[in-house]
Amino acid sequence: MSEGIEVAKKLPVTDDIREAMATIRRGTDSFLIEEEFEQKLARSKATGKPLRCKLGLDPTAPDIHIGHTVVLNKLRQLQDLGHQVIFLVGDFTAAIGDPSGRNVTRPPLSREQITANAETYLAQAGHVLDLEKTEVRYNSEWSNALGSVGLIQLASRYTLARLLEREDFAKRYAEELPIAMHELLYPLMQGYDSVALEADLELGGSDQRFNLLVGRELQRQYGQEPQCILTMPLLVGLDGQVKMSKSKHNYIGITDEPNDMFGKVMSISDTLMWDWYDLLSLRPNDEIAALKKECAEGRNPRDAKVMLAKEIVTRFHSAAAADGAEAEFVNRFRQGAMPSEIPEVTVPAGEEGIQIARMLKEAGLVSSTSDGNRMIEQGGVRIQGESVSDKMLRFKAGEELIVQVGKRKWAKIHLA
Amino acid sequence: MSEGIEVAKKLPVTDDIREAMATIRRGTDSFLIEEEFEQKLARSKATGKPLRCKLGLDPTAPDIHIGHTVVLNKLRQLQDLGHQVIFLVGDFTAAIGDPSGRNVTRPPLSREQITANAETYLAQAGHVLDLEKTEVRYNSEWSNALGSVGLIQLASRYTLARLLEREDFAKRYAEELPIAMHELLYPLMQGYDSVALEADLELGGSDQRFNLLVGRELQRQYGQEPQCILTMPLLVGLDGQVKMSKSKHNYIGITDEPNDMFGKVMSISDTLMWDWYDLLSLRPNDEIAALKKECAEGRNPRDAKVMLAKEIVTRFHSAAAADGAEAEFVNRFRQGAMPSEIPEVTVPAGEEGIQIARMLKEAGLVSSTSDGNRMIEQGGVRIQGESVSDKMLRFKAGEELIVQVGKRKWAKIHLA
Repeated sequence: MSEGIEVAKKLPVTDDIREAMATIRRGTDSFLIEEEFEQKLARSKATGKPLRCKLGLDPTAPDIHIGHTVVLNKLRQLQDLGHQVIFLVGDFTAAIGDPSGRNVTRPPLSREQITANAETYLAQAGHVLDLEKTEVRYNSEWSNALGSVGLIQLASRYTLARLLEREDFAKRYAEELPIAMHELLYPLMQGYDSVALEADLELGGSDQRFNLLVGRELQRQYGQEPQCILTMPLLVGLDGQVKMSKSKHNYIGITDEPNDMFGKVMSISDTLMWDWYDLLSLRPNDEIAALKKECAEGRNPRDAKVMLAKEIVTRFHSAAAADGAEAEFVNRFRQGAMPSEIPEVTVPAGEEGIQIARMLKEAGLVSSTSDGNRMIEQGGVRIQGESVSDKMLRFKAGEELIVQVGKRKWAKIHLA
Repeated sequence: MSEGIEVAKKLPVTDDIREAMATIRRGTDSFLIEEEFEQKLARSKATGKPLRCKLGLDPTAPDIHIGHTVVLNKLRQLQDLGHQVIFLVGDFTAAIGDPSGRNVTRPPLSREQITANAETYLAQAGHVLDLEKTEVRYNSEWSNALGSVGLIQLASRYTLARLLEREDFAKRYAEELPIAMHELLYPLMQGYDSVALEADLELGGSDQRFNLLVGRELQRQYGQEPQCILTMPLLVGLDGQVKMSKSKHNYIGITDEPNDMFGKVMSISDTLMWDWYDLLSLRPNDEIAALKKECAEGRNPRDAKVMLAKEIVTRFHSAAAADGAEAEFVNRFRQGAMPSEIPEVTVPAGEEGIQIARMLKEAGLVSSTSDGNRMIEQGGVRIQGESVSDKMLRFKAGEELIVQVGKRKWAKIHLA
């Protein structure tokens, strides 16, 4: 059995490899093992053979927002460095679903649904990746071929104790919550994908770290050089508080209109903007560093925000759409649609949060809560640039909102 | 999903069913659930459909002794009651072995080895069972067909916590000894055999109880009426102390010569004889009860022992061989080969046991330990009727031996 790259002769690490490592490292949540990956890069350079970089995709929910593109961005960087990106569709487990019936969010999907979902996902991912250069695979190819014998042999490669190291398993076991046996097999199946694909690198969200490590170990067991693993953090949403998600209404959908998309990027805080640069921009490290320096030395950070907004709109629409969105934004800005100085107000949200009309009153934007509710009914209230129709909407302490009532009343509300 | 027989209309339990239950219950270690099985018998009587009684067989070690026939005997009783005996060859797992490589006693077997072992086992079992009426099946039939998808679906039917209730798993987990994941899948595969066979009853040794219960539960999960389970105790060996096994030299091989077999049965204690009646005899309960009563009222228990010895020799050889063995035994007895009264001696064995020559001296059978060793060398020492050649043999407190030195010196030695 191979002991991996550690015992192999060390190849020289040249400047271009160091630069590539810096690009790959940018924004990562974890990157194991960097020295190994440096050597993989060096070997790839020496042999001309691209590294195989795998991302698994769950074909159950194809509708993505820009938070989901963080890991795609990292893949694009690898693709631009000349490596082979593999898009792995997890159709095997999707077709099984959760047969214990405990997990209603995981019903079995038909072959047609899986293919349709994967195609939608790929079309969306195509805004970030060069699909022409992307290898698309379905794991049923080797998972079905395993058979019951192969699956038992696979299971023999891993101990229960090692699987129970996964945080959610450990927690459920400790709390005496049921763990169905098939759930313990899924990380092994996912790990076996890396064996079948002979992956050099697997990418995932930070919650995938354990599963990616299983792949690394199984490759060793099957006599392969172990993959490196790279996890990306979750993107913080527009509110600057919690991870971007549809349920939190703090997201940018990748199918959002150019003007919406542009405006939403413009609404984020300066601090969040630099995180987004790391995770969403494809600009090289030195360009971002230079921009940051300029802003630190007095340049208006809004310039940097405009550049980021244009890059994002260009990616999901076009350069022309980005120019249009910028013009529209500047136009609204000039016409006083959004004043350059917005009064900042702090409103106490209380332990249970505060309802929207009450918040508008406390912020001095309306005269009474009934006045506030009437403005909402008339479509005269916008939060983060979006019109609000739900009078029951509540906000919690820690949120920061840009609120417009009617044409002229603006406030940046800090909920405390 | 069926709730099992519990909610069905109760069928009348007639005397013949009660009698059958008494026969089936005899000698069992556990029998779950008796009320359910009574109803199964009643339904079988009403419909004329025999019950399906399953015994799994591990085709790794085909060479059996009469201890292994205890469970076959129970099957024979069921067969004589008109039910369907199913002999299940566990070829699926035997062909995989233990792929973790931890268990050297479980190397994978070739198809030829498995078939040969199963045939040997069946030929041996044929002394007890009516093979014409026995259904022989191989579990690879449905286990291979499961595929990786089916195995994952099967795994989803059971939780980790339930599997860890098995004593050896619980112990290893508590002691932080590794449990490879495939080991946890094997009880499920075995349980699935009962689903595939639609078993009404599964038999096994007392160590199999957990696995048999898994079958019961899985049948429920698959919407079948759950099987009843019946476990048989391990047969105590010739020494009356520990379970019969080759390594303890306290066994009767089913290929032993008639005279050997007869003599060995005659050497067991009266107490052990009645246990053996329960576990090895096919005589009806009332016949055994009557015999026991006669002995309690003064009949020589040796008569009962002769009857048991003849039944066993008849089973594994023939009625003629049993008659011959009896004649030979009586002949030796008449010629004083074994006196009707043997002196009983108690010899202290000490904490570390006692070596054979020393024991002979202490029992007054030889004049010195060197005299004892010389007698052993000359083949003049027999223990339980068998010639002894190993001078290093040691015995422990609690053992009871019939020892012969030369032609005339006999003693029943109690080691204390």
